[in-house]
Amino acid sequence: MEKIYREIIHLLHQAGELVKEELAQQDVVVSTKSSRSDLVTNIDKLVQNYLMSSLNVLIPNLKFLAEENGLTELSDFSGKVAVIDPIDGTNNMVLQQKDFCILLGLYEEKMGRCGFIYEVMGNHLLWGGPEIGVFYDDQPWQMQKDLSLEDGLISFNSKIFRENMLKSHELSQRALGIRMTGCAGLEMMDIALGNRVAYISNLQPWDYAAGQIILEALGMKVRTISGKSLSLNGRELMIAATPKAYQEILERIGHA
Amino acid sequence: MEKIYREIIHLLHQAGELVKEELAQQDVVVSTKSSRSDLVTNIDKLVQNYLMSSLNVLIPNLKFLAEENGLTELSDFSGKVAVIDPIDGTNNMVLQQKDFCILLGLYEEKMGRCGFIYEVMGNHLLWGGPEIGVFYDDQPWQMQKDLSLEDGLISFNSKIFRENMLKSHELSQRALGIRMTGCAGLEMMDIALGNRVAYISNLQPWDYAAGQIILEALGMKVRTISGKSLSLNGRELMIAATPKAYQEILERIGHA
Repeated sequence: MEKIYREIIHLLHQAGELVKEELAQQDVVVSTKSSRSDLVTNIDKLVQNYLMSSLNVLIPNLKFLAEENGLTELSDFSGKVAVIDPIDGTNNMVLQQKDFCILLGLYEEKMGRCGFIYEVMGNHLLWGGPEIGVFYDDQPWQMQKDLSLEDGLISFNSKIFRENMLKSHELSQRALGIRMTGCAGLEMMDIALGNRVAYISNLQPWDYAAGQIILEALGMKVRTISGKSLSLNGRELMIAATPKAYQEILERIGHA
Repeated sequence: MEKIYREIIHLLHQAGELVKEELAQQDVVVSTKSSRSDLVTNIDKLVQNYLMSSLNVLIPNLKFLAEENGLTELSDFSGKVAVIDPIDGTNNMVLQQKDFCILLGLYEEKMGRCGFIYEVMGNHLLWGGPEIGVFYDDQPWQMQKDLSLEDGLISFNSKIFRENMLKSHELSQRALGIRMTGCAGLEMMDIALGNRVAYISNLQPWDYAAGQIILEALGMKVRTISGKSLSLNGRELMIAATPKAYQEILERIGHA
Protein backbone atom coordinates (compact mmCIF):
# COMPACT_ATOMS: atom_id res chain seq x y z
CA MET A 1 0.00 0.00 0.00
CA GLU A 2 1.25 3.46 -0.83
CA LYS A 3 2.71 5.05 2.26
CA ILE A 4 0.86 8.28 1.55
CA TYR A 5 -2.50 6.60 2.14
CA ARG A 6 -1.38 5.53 5.63
CA GLU A 7 -0.43 9.13 6.32
CA ILE A 8 -3.79 10.38 5.11
CA ILE A 9 -5.58 7.86 7.36
CA HIS A 10 -3.54 9.21 10.26
CA LEU A 11 -4.61 12.76 9.35
CA LEU A 12 -8.27 11.72 9.30
CA HIS A 13 -7.97 10.17 12.76
CA GLN A 14 -6.30 13.35 14.00
CA ALA A 15 -9.09 15.44 12.49
CA GLY A 16 -11.62 13.18 14.20
CA GLU A 17 -9.90 13.77 17.54
CA LEU A 18 -10.14 17.52 16.96
CA VAL A 19 -13.88 17.18 16.36
CA LYS A 20 -14.39 15.10 19.51
CA GLU A 21 -12.42 17.59 21.62
CA GLU A 22 -14.48 20.52 20.34
CA LEU A 23 -17.75 18.65 20.90
CA ALA A 24 -16.66 17.65 24.43
CA GLN A 25 -15.87 21.28 25.26
CA GLN A 26 -19.35 22.18 23.96
CA ASP A 27 -17.49 24.75 21.95
CA VAL A 28 -19.67 24.58 18.85
CA VAL A 29 -20.52 27.90 17.18
CA VAL A 30 -23.43 27.31 14.80
CA SER A 31 -24.45 29.61 11.97
CA THR A 32 -26.63 29.12 8.89
CA LYS A 33 -25.79 29.29 5.17
CA SER A 34 -28.39 28.97 2.38
CA SER A 35 -31.39 28.37 4.69
CA ARG A 36 -32.50 28.06 8.32
CA SER A 37 -31.66 24.33 8.32
CA ASP A 38 -28.33 24.57 6.42
CA LEU A 39 -25.97 24.67 9.41
CA VAL A 40 -22.24 25.29 9.50
CA THR A 41 -19.98 25.44 12.55
CA ASN A 42 -16.51 26.46 13.61
CA ILE A 43 -15.71 22.72 13.57
CA ASP A 44 -16.40 22.42 9.82
CA LYS A 45 -13.93 25.23 9.14
CA LEU A 46 -11.36 23.96 11.67
CA VAL A 47 -11.32 20.48 10.11
CA GLN A 48 -11.11 21.82 6.56
CA ASN A 49 -8.18 24.08 7.46
CA TYR A 50 -6.42 21.23 9.27
CA LEU A 51 -6.84 18.80 6.36
CA MET A 52 -5.84 21.36 3.72
CA SER A 53 -2.67 22.47 5.49
CA SER A 54 -1.65 18.87 6.25
CA LEU A 55 -2.40 17.59 2.73
CA ASN A 56 -0.45 20.51 1.25
CA VAL A 57 2.62 19.23 3.06
CA LEU A 58 2.06 15.61 1.97
CA ILE A 59 1.17 16.25 -1.69
CA PRO A 60 2.96 19.05 -3.60
CA ASN A 61 0.91 21.22 -6.00
CA LEU A 62 -2.41 19.91 -4.69
CA LYS A 63 -5.55 21.81 -5.69
CA PHE A 64 -8.74 21.87 -3.61
CA LEU A 65 -12.49 21.73 -4.12
CA ALA A 66 -14.13 21.96 -0.70
CA GLU A 67 -17.37 22.87 1.02
CA GLU A 68 -16.21 25.79 3.16
CA ASN A 69 -14.22 29.00 2.80
CA GLY A 70 -15.10 29.84 -0.81
CA LEU A 71 -13.49 26.78 -2.39
CA THR A 72 -16.76 25.46 -3.80
CA GLU A 73 -15.77 25.70 -7.48
CA LEU A 74 -12.80 24.42 -9.45
CA SER A 75 -12.67 24.87 -13.22
CA ASP A 76 -9.33 23.15 -13.84
CA PHE A 77 -9.09 19.53 -12.67
CA SER A 78 -5.65 18.93 -14.21
CA GLY A 79 -2.96 17.54 -11.91
CA LYS A 80 -3.83 16.45 -8.37
CA VAL A 81 -7.04 17.55 -6.69
CA ALA A 82 -8.47 16.90 -3.23
CA VAL A 83 -12.26 17.15 -2.85
CA ILE A 84 -13.15 17.69 0.81
CA ASP A 85 -16.26 17.78 2.92
CA PRO A 86 -14.81 18.48 6.37
CA ILE A 87 -18.09 17.56 8.14
CA ASP A 88 -20.73 15.77 6.11
CA GLY A 89 -23.91 15.73 8.18
CA THR A 90 -23.30 18.97 10.09
CA ASN A 91 -26.92 19.00 11.36
CA ASN A 92 -26.39 15.52 12.81
CA MET A 93 -23.17 16.63 14.48
CA VAL A 94 -24.87 19.66 16.04
CA LEU A 95 -28.19 18.03 16.94
CA GLN A 96 -27.17 14.43 17.72
CA GLN A 97 -23.39 14.36 18.21
CA LYS A 98 -23.38 11.28 15.95
CA ASP A 99 -23.99 10.11 12.35
CA PHE A 100 -21.61 12.48 10.59
CA CYS A 101 -18.36 11.88 8.70
CA ILE A 102 -15.28 13.44 7.13
CA LEU A 103 -15.07 12.96 3.35
CA LEU A 104 -12.00 13.13 1.12
CA GLY A 105 -11.69 12.21 -2.56
CA LEU A 106 -8.31 12.32 -4.34
CA TYR A 107 -8.19 12.84 -8.11
CA GLU A 108 -5.41 12.82 -10.69
CA GLU A 109 -6.23 14.33 -14.09
CA LYS A 110 -9.91 14.13 -13.03
CA MET A 111 -9.69 10.36 -12.46
CA GLY A 112 -10.72 9.21 -8.95
CA ARG A 113 -7.68 7.62 -7.30
CA CYS A 114 -8.75 7.14 -3.68
CA GLY A 115 -11.75 8.00 -1.50
CA PHE A 116 -12.04 8.15 2.30
CA ILE A 117 -15.25 8.11 4.41
CA TYR A 118 -14.43 8.48 8.09
CA GLU A 119 -17.36 8.06 10.49
CA VAL A 120 -15.99 9.97 13.44
CA MET A 121 -17.93 8.96 16.57
CA GLY A 122 -18.00 5.21 15.82
CA ASN A 123 -14.43 5.38 14.46
CA HIS A 124 -15.22 3.47 11.24
CA LEU A 125 -13.20 4.07 8.08
CA LEU A 126 -14.10 2.97 4.56
CA TRP A 127 -11.51 3.85 1.96
CA GLY A 128 -9.98 2.78 -1.33
CA GLY A 129 -9.93 3.18 -5.07
CA PRO A 130 -9.59 1.40 -8.41
CA GLU A 131 -5.90 0.46 -8.12
CA ILE A 132 -5.58 -0.25 -4.41
CA GLY A 133 -8.92 -1.94 -3.66
CA VAL A 134 -11.29 -1.08 -0.82
CA PHE A 135 -10.85 -1.49 2.95
CA TYR A 136 -13.34 -1.27 5.81
CA ASP A 137 -11.79 -0.89 9.25
CA ASP A 138 -8.51 -2.19 7.75
CA GLN A 139 -10.06 -5.35 6.25
CA PRO A 140 -10.13 -5.83 2.46
CA TRP A 141 -13.69 -5.28 1.33
CA GLN A 142 -15.73 -6.49 -1.68
CA MET A 143 -19.26 -5.86 -2.87
CA GLN A 144 -21.37 -7.92 -0.48
CA LYS A 145 -24.15 -8.89 -2.87
CA ASP A 146 -25.69 -7.39 -6.00
CA LEU A 147 -29.09 -6.93 -4.31
CA SER A 148 -32.23 -5.97 -6.23
CA LEU A 149 -34.36 -3.02 -5.22
CA GLU A 150 -37.02 -5.37 -3.82
CA ASP A 151 -34.49 -7.08 -1.53
CA GLY A 152 -33.17 -4.08 0.36
CA LEU A 153 -33.54 -0.64 1.89
CA ILE A 154 -33.49 2.61 -0.09
CA SER A 155 -32.64 6.16 1.02
CA PHE A 156 -33.67 9.52 -0.35
CA ASN A 157 -32.95 13.16 0.17
CA SER A 158 -36.02 14.28 2.15
CA LYS A 159 -37.19 16.87 -0.41
CA ILE A 160 -37.09 14.31 -3.26
CA PHE A 161 -39.23 11.94 -1.20
CA ARG A 162 -41.57 14.61 0.18
CA GLU A 163 -42.36 15.91 -3.32
CA ASN A 164 -42.45 12.44 -4.90
CA MET A 165 -39.76 13.47 -7.39
CA LEU A 166 -38.22 10.71 -9.52
CA LYS A 167 -41.03 8.28 -8.72
CA SER A 168 -39.55 8.01 -5.25
CA HIS A 169 -42.82 6.85 -3.65
CA GLU A 170 -43.09 3.97 -6.12
CA LEU A 171 -39.40 3.11 -5.64
CA SER A 172 -39.75 3.15 -1.84
CA GLN A 173 -42.70 0.76 -1.99
CA ARG A 174 -40.80 -1.54 -4.34
CA ALA A 175 -37.96 -1.69 -1.77
CA LEU A 176 -38.22 -3.35 1.67
CA GLY A 177 -38.18 0.02 3.39
CA ILE A 178 -36.90 3.58 3.39
CA ARG A 179 -34.29 5.11 5.65
CA MET A 180 -33.04 8.71 6.01
CA THR A 181 -29.89 9.44 7.98
CA GLY A 182 -29.19 13.03 6.92
CA CYS A 183 -25.63 12.21 5.86
CA ALA A 184 -24.72 11.45 2.21
CA GLY A 185 -21.34 9.93 3.07
CA LEU A 186 -22.87 7.47 5.51
CA GLU A 187 -25.62 6.55 3.04
CA MET A 188 -22.92 5.70 0.49
CA MET A 189 -20.91 3.82 3.13
CA ASP A 190 -24.08 1.83 3.90
CA ILE A 191 -24.41 0.88 0.22
CA ALA A 192 -20.79 -0.35 0.25
CA LEU A 193 -21.46 -2.35 3.44
CA GLY A 194 -24.56 -4.02 1.95
CA ASN A 195 -26.98 -2.16 4.27
CA ARG A 196 -28.71 -0.28 1.43
CA VAL A 197 -29.49 -1.05 -2.20
CA ALA A 198 -29.77 2.55 -3.36
CA TYR A 199 -29.53 6.22 -2.41
CA ILE A 200 -31.10 8.99 -4.50
CA SER A 201 -30.18 12.57 -3.72
CA ASN A 202 -29.23 16.03 -4.97
CA LEU A 203 -25.58 16.47 -4.10
CA GLN A 204 -22.55 18.70 -4.43
CA PRO A 205 -19.21 17.19 -5.55
CA TRP A 206 -17.79 17.12 -2.01
CA ASP A 207 -20.83 15.12 -0.86
CA TYR A 208 -20.35 12.32 -3.41
CA ALA A 209 -16.64 12.34 -4.46
CA ALA A 210 -15.28 9.97 -1.80
CA GLY A 211 -18.28 7.64 -1.98
CA GLN A 212 -18.23 7.55 -5.77
CA ILE A 213 -14.56 6.53 -5.95
CA ILE A 214 -15.10 3.77 -3.37
CA LEU A 215 -18.42 2.44 -4.72
CA GLU A 216 -17.15 2.34 -8.30
CA ALA A 217 -14.03 0.49 -7.14
CA LEU A 218 -16.42 -2.10 -5.63
CA GLY A 219 -18.27 -2.43 -8.95
CA MET A 220 -21.27 -0.37 -7.87
CA LYS A 221 -22.90 2.54 -9.69
CA VAL A 222 -22.80 6.28 -8.96
CA ARG A 223 -24.32 8.30 -11.81
CA THR A 224 -26.72 11.11 -12.58
CA ILE A 225 -30.41 10.20 -12.72
CA SER A 226 -30.07 10.15 -16.53
CA GLY A 227 -27.32 7.53 -16.24
CA LYS A 228 -24.54 9.97 -17.14
CA SER A 229 -21.20 10.64 -15.41
CA LEU A 230 -21.31 13.13 -12.58
CA SER A 231 -19.51 16.33 -13.53
CA LEU A 232 -17.79 17.36 -10.26
CA ASN A 233 -19.27 20.78 -11.07
CA GLY A 234 -22.23 21.99 -9.03
CA ARG A 235 -25.21 20.21 -7.52
CA GLU A 236 -26.63 17.22 -9.42
CA LEU A 237 -29.47 14.74 -8.98
CA MET A 238 -27.76 11.39 -8.57
CA ILE A 239 -28.18 7.67 -7.86
CA ALA A 240 -25.75 5.49 -5.92
CA ALA A 241 -26.77 1.82 -6.01
CA THR A 242 -25.96 -1.81 -6.54
CA PRO A 243 -25.75 -2.64 -10.29
CA LYS A 244 -29.14 -4.41 -10.21
CA ALA A 245 -30.96 -1.69 -8.27
CA TYR A 246 -29.38 0.98 -10.48
CA GLN A 247 -30.79 -0.68 -13.64
CA GLU A 248 -34.25 -1.04 -12.08
CA ILE A 249 -34.28 2.59 -10.91
CA LEU A 250 -33.15 3.95 -14.30
CA GLU A 251 -35.87 1.92 -16.03
CA ARG A 252 -38.57 3.06 -13.62
CA ILE A 253 -37.50 6.70 -13.72
CA GLY A 254 -37.66 6.41 -17.51
CA HIS A 255 -34.22 7.59 -18.52
CA ALA A 256 -32.78 4.16 -19.39
CA MET B 1 -32.40 0.08 43.19
CA GLU B 2 -34.68 -2.92 43.21
CA LYS B 3 -32.63 -6.07 42.77
CA ILE B 4 -35.09 -7.37 40.23
CA TYR B 5 -34.20 -4.59 37.78
CA ARG B 6 -30.54 -5.65 37.92
CA GLU B 7 -31.63 -9.19 37.12
CA ILE B 8 -33.75 -8.02 34.20
CA ILE B 9 -30.80 -6.02 32.82
CA HIS B 10 -28.72 -9.19 33.03
CA LEU B 11 -31.43 -11.07 31.09
CA LEU B 12 -31.46 -8.40 28.37
CA HIS B 13 -27.69 -8.64 27.96
CA GLN B 14 -27.98 -12.43 27.76
CA ALA B 15 -30.71 -12.09 25.14
CA GLY B 16 -28.46 -9.70 23.19
CA GLU B 17 -25.67 -12.28 23.24
CA LEU B 18 -28.09 -14.88 21.85
CA VAL B 19 -28.92 -12.50 18.99
CA LYS B 20 -25.27 -11.82 18.20
CA GLU B 21 -24.45 -15.55 18.19
CA GLU B 22 -27.29 -16.31 15.80
CA LEU B 23 -26.31 -13.43 13.51
CA ALA B 24 -22.65 -14.51 13.54
CA GLN B 25 -23.66 -18.06 12.54
CA GLN B 26 -25.72 -16.51 9.72
CA ASP B 27 -28.45 -18.71 11.07
CA VAL B 28 -31.32 -16.32 10.37
CA VAL B 29 -34.52 -17.85 8.98
CA VAL B 30 -36.67 -15.04 7.59
CA SER B 31 -40.39 -15.24 6.87
CA THR B 32 -43.07 -12.62 6.30
CA LYS B 33 -46.21 -11.77 8.28
CA SER B 34 -48.78 -9.17 7.19
CA SER B 35 -46.92 -8.06 4.03
CA ARG B 36 -43.82 -8.64 1.89
CA SER B 37 -41.85 -6.15 4.00
CA ASP B 38 -43.12 -7.30 7.45
CA LEU B 39 -40.29 -9.66 8.34
CA VAL B 40 -40.01 -12.05 11.25
CA THR B 41 -37.17 -14.45 12.04
CA ASN B 42 -36.31 -17.38 14.25
CA ILE B 43 -34.35 -14.85 16.36
CA ASP B 44 -37.50 -12.86 17.21
CA LYS B 45 -39.14 -16.02 18.52
CA LEU B 46 -36.01 -17.29 20.29
CA VAL B 47 -35.58 -13.99 22.19
CA GLN B 48 -39.25 -13.80 23.15
CA ASN B 49 -39.22 -17.38 24.47
CA TYR B 50 -36.01 -16.72 26.40
CA LEU B 51 -37.32 -13.52 27.98
CA MET B 52 -40.73 -15.01 28.83
CA SER B 53 -39.34 -18.14 30.48
CA SER B 54 -36.74 -16.13 32.43
CA LEU B 55 -39.22 -13.43 33.55
CA ASN B 56 -41.67 -16.12 34.64
CA VAL B 57 -39.05 -17.34 37.11
CA LEU B 58 -38.26 -13.81 38.37
CA ILE B 59 -41.82 -12.49 38.68
CA PRO B 60 -44.62 -14.86 39.86
CA ASN B 61 -48.03 -14.62 38.14
CA LEU B 62 -46.71 -12.43 35.34
CA LYS B 63 -48.96 -11.96 32.28
CA PHE B 64 -47.65 -11.21 28.79
CA LEU B 65 -48.53 -9.03 25.83
CA ALA B 66 -45.95 -9.67 23.11
CA GLU B 67 -45.38 -9.39 19.37
CA GLU B 68 -44.85 -13.06 18.50
CA ASN B 69 -46.50 -16.43 19.14
CA GLY B 70 -50.13 -15.28 19.35
CA LEU B 71 -49.71 -13.10 22.46
CA THR B 72 -50.73 -9.90 20.66
CA GLU B 73 -53.85 -9.21 22.74
CA LEU B 74 -54.47 -8.94 26.46
CA SER B 75 -57.88 -7.95 27.75
CA ASP B 76 -57.10 -8.03 31.48
CA PHE B 77 -54.25 -5.77 32.63
CA SER B 78 -54.80 -6.47 36.35
CA GLY B 79 -51.76 -7.59 38.33
CA LYS B 80 -48.31 -7.64 36.74
CA VAL B 81 -47.89 -7.53 32.98
CA ALA B 82 -44.78 -7.61 30.76
CA VAL B 83 -45.12 -6.04 27.28
CA ILE B 84 -42.38 -7.39 25.01
CA ASP B 85 -41.05 -6.71 21.55
CA PRO B 86 -38.24 -9.28 21.29
CA ILE B 87 -36.72 -7.59 18.21
CA ASP B 88 -37.93 -4.10 17.35
CA GLY B 89 -36.58 -3.26 13.90
CA THR B 90 -36.48 -6.80 12.51
CA ASN B 91 -35.90 -5.51 8.97
CA ASN B 92 -32.85 -3.59 10.20
CA MET B 93 -31.54 -6.72 11.95
CA VAL B 94 -31.97 -8.81 8.79
CA LEU B 95 -30.83 -6.22 6.24
CA GLN B 96 -28.22 -4.20 8.19
CA GLN B 97 -27.25 -6.24 11.27
CA LYS B 98 -27.63 -2.99 13.23
CA ASP B 99 -30.19 -0.41 14.43
CA PHE B 100 -32.57 -2.78 16.22
CA CYS B 101 -33.44 -3.23 19.90
CA ILE B 102 -35.13 -5.40 22.51
CA LEU B 103 -38.10 -3.71 24.23
CA LEU B 104 -39.67 -4.54 27.57
CA GLY B 105 -42.30 -2.59 29.52
CA LEU B 106 -43.41 -3.70 33.00
CA TYR B 107 -46.89 -2.74 34.29
CA GLU B 108 -48.68 -3.14 37.59
CA GLU B 109 -52.47 -2.63 37.53
CA LYS B 110 -51.96 -1.03 34.10
CA MET B 111 -49.54 1.59 35.49
CA GLY B 112 -46.13 1.65 33.79
CA ARG B 113 -43.49 0.75 36.38
CA CYS B 114 -40.30 0.32 34.35
CA GLY B 115 -39.29 0.31 30.67
CA PHE B 116 -36.15 -1.07 29.01
CA ILE B 117 -34.79 -0.23 25.53
CA TYR B 118 -31.71 -2.31 24.77
CA GLU B 119 -29.86 -1.43 21.56
CA VAL B 120 -28.09 -4.71 20.95
CA MET B 121 -25.17 -4.14 18.54
CA GLY B 122 -23.96 -0.91 20.17
CA ASN B 123 -24.71 -2.30 23.66
CA HIS B 124 -26.61 0.79 24.84
CA LEU B 125 -29.33 0.50 27.47
CA LEU B 126 -31.91 3.12 28.38
CA TRP B 127 -34.22 2.13 31.20
CA GLY B 128 -36.28 3.44 34.08
CA GLY B 129 -39.68 4.50 35.34
CA PRO B 130 -41.60 7.00 37.49
CA GLU B 131 -40.34 5.76 40.89
CA ILE B 132 -36.78 4.74 40.09
CA GLY B 133 -35.76 7.45 37.61
CA VAL B 134 -34.09 6.91 34.24
CA PHE B 135 -30.62 5.60 33.42
CA TYR B 136 -28.60 5.60 30.19
CA ASP B 137 -25.65 3.22 30.12
CA ASP B 138 -25.83 3.14 33.94
CA GLN B 139 -25.74 6.94 34.37
CA PRO B 140 -28.76 8.78 35.85
CA TRP B 141 -30.49 10.57 32.97
CA GLN B 142 -32.70 13.67 32.78
CA MET B 143 -34.53 15.41 29.96
CA GLN B 144 -31.73 17.16 28.08
CA LYS B 145 -33.69 20.21 26.92
CA ASP B 146 -37.33 20.99 26.16
CA LEU B 147 -36.59 21.70 22.48
CA SER B 148 -39.14 23.25 20.12
CA LEU B 149 -40.05 21.63 16.83
CA GLU B 150 -38.04 24.27 14.94
CA ASP B 151 -34.89 23.48 16.92
CA GLY B 152 -34.59 19.76 16.24
CA LEU B 153 -35.06 16.69 14.07
CA ILE B 154 -38.38 14.89 13.60
CA SER B 155 -39.09 11.28 12.62
CA PHE B 156 -42.09 9.68 10.96
CA ASN B 157 -43.37 6.29 10.02
CA SER B 158 -42.67 6.20 6.26
CA LYS B 159 -46.29 5.75 5.19
CA ILE B 160 -47.43 8.75 7.26
CA PHE B 161 -44.79 10.90 5.59
CA ARG B 162 -45.27 9.47 2.09
CA GLU B 163 -49.01 10.18 2.18
CA ASN B 164 -48.64 13.52 3.98
CA MET B 165 -50.92 12.30 6.77
CA LEU B 166 -51.14 14.48 9.92
CA LYS B 167 -49.63 17.48 8.13
CA SER B 168 -46.32 15.64 8.25
CA HIS B 169 -44.83 17.60 5.33
CA GLU B 170 -45.54 20.90 7.07
CA LEU B 171 -44.19 19.54 10.37
CA SER B 172 -41.01 18.26 8.69
CA GLN B 173 -40.36 21.66 7.11
CA ARG B 174 -40.93 23.37 10.43
CA ALA B 175 -38.28 21.12 12.01
CA LEU B 176 -34.54 21.24 11.18
CA GLY B 177 -34.74 17.94 9.33
CA ILE B 178 -36.35 14.53 9.08
CA ARG B 179 -34.83 11.16 9.92
CA MET B 180 -36.16 7.61 9.51
CA THR B 181 -34.41 4.72 11.23
CA GLY B 182 -37.03 1.97 10.86
CA CYS B 183 -37.03 1.22 14.59
CA ALA B 184 -39.63 2.72 16.95
CA GLY B 185 -37.67 1.89 20.10
CA LEU B 186 -34.56 3.67 18.86
CA GLU B 187 -36.60 6.69 17.74
CA MET B 188 -37.97 6.95 21.28
CA MET B 189 -34.50 6.43 22.76
CA ASP B 190 -33.29 9.28 20.52
CA ILE B 191 -36.00 11.55 21.92
CA ALA B 192 -34.85 10.70 25.46
CA LEU B 193 -31.23 11.39 24.49
CA GLY B 194 -32.09 14.81 23.01
CA ASN B 195 -31.38 13.70 19.41
CA ARG B 196 -34.99 14.16 18.22
CA VAL B 197 -37.79 16.53 19.17
CA ALA B 198 -40.63 14.29 17.98
CA TYR B 199 -41.62 10.96 16.46
CA ILE B 200 -45.01 10.37 14.84
CA SER B 201 -46.02 6.83 13.99
CA ASN B 202 -48.69 4.13 13.97
CA LEU B 203 -47.66 1.63 16.61
CA GLN B 204 -48.64 -1.51 18.49
CA PRO B 205 -48.38 -1.57 22.31
CA TRP B 206 -45.12 -3.59 22.28
CA ASP B 207 -43.57 -0.92 20.02
CA TYR B 208 -44.27 1.98 22.40
CA ALA B 209 -44.67 0.50 25.92
CA ALA B 210 -41.02 0.66 27.02
CA GLY B 211 -40.43 4.05 25.41
CA GLN B 212 -43.60 5.53 26.85
CA ILE B 213 -42.74 4.56 30.43
CA ILE B 214 -39.23 6.00 30.08
CA LEU B 215 -40.16 9.21 28.23
CA GLU B 216 -43.01 10.00 30.64
CA ALA B 217 -40.65 9.44 33.58
CA LEU B 218 -38.39 12.09 31.97
CA GLY B 219 -41.31 14.53 31.69
CA MET B 220 -41.84 14.02 27.96
CA LYS B 221 -45.08 13.24 26.13
CA VAL B 222 -46.32 10.01 24.55
CA ARG B 223 -49.98 10.26 23.52
CA THR B 224 -52.38 9.57 20.68
CA ILE B 225 -52.57 12.18 17.92
CA SER B 226 -55.73 13.48 19.61
CA GLY B 227 -53.80 14.04 22.83
CA LYS B 228 -55.39 11.07 24.61
CA SER B 229 -53.80 8.24 26.59
CA LEU B 230 -52.63 5.28 24.54
CA SER B 231 -54.82 2.24 25.24
CA LEU B 232 -52.30 -0.64 25.14
CA ASN B 233 -54.88 -2.27 22.89
CA GLY B 234 -54.19 -2.48 19.16
CA ARG B 235 -52.41 -0.19 16.73
CA GLU B 236 -52.72 3.58 17.34
CA LEU B 237 -51.50 6.77 15.68
CA MET B 238 -49.23 8.37 18.25
CA ILE B 239 -46.82 11.20 19.04
CA ALA B 240 -43.73 10.96 21.22
CA ALA B 241 -42.12 14.37 21.77
CA THR B 242 -40.63 16.99 24.03
CA PRO B 243 -43.38 18.93 25.85
CA LYS B 244 -42.90 21.99 23.60
CA ALA B 245 -42.86 20.04 20.33
CA TYR B 246 -45.87 18.00 21.48
CA GLN B 247 -47.92 21.18 22.02
CA GLU B 248 -46.89 22.61 18.65
CA ILE B 249 -47.72 19.36 16.83
CA LEU B 250 -51.14 19.01 18.49
CA GLU B 251 -51.97 22.59 17.56
CA ARG B 252 -50.87 22.14 13.97
CA ILE B 253 -52.63 18.81 13.54
CA GLY B 254 -55.72 20.52 14.89
CA HIS B 255 -56.73 18.26 17.75
CA ALA B 256 -55.51 20.51 20.55
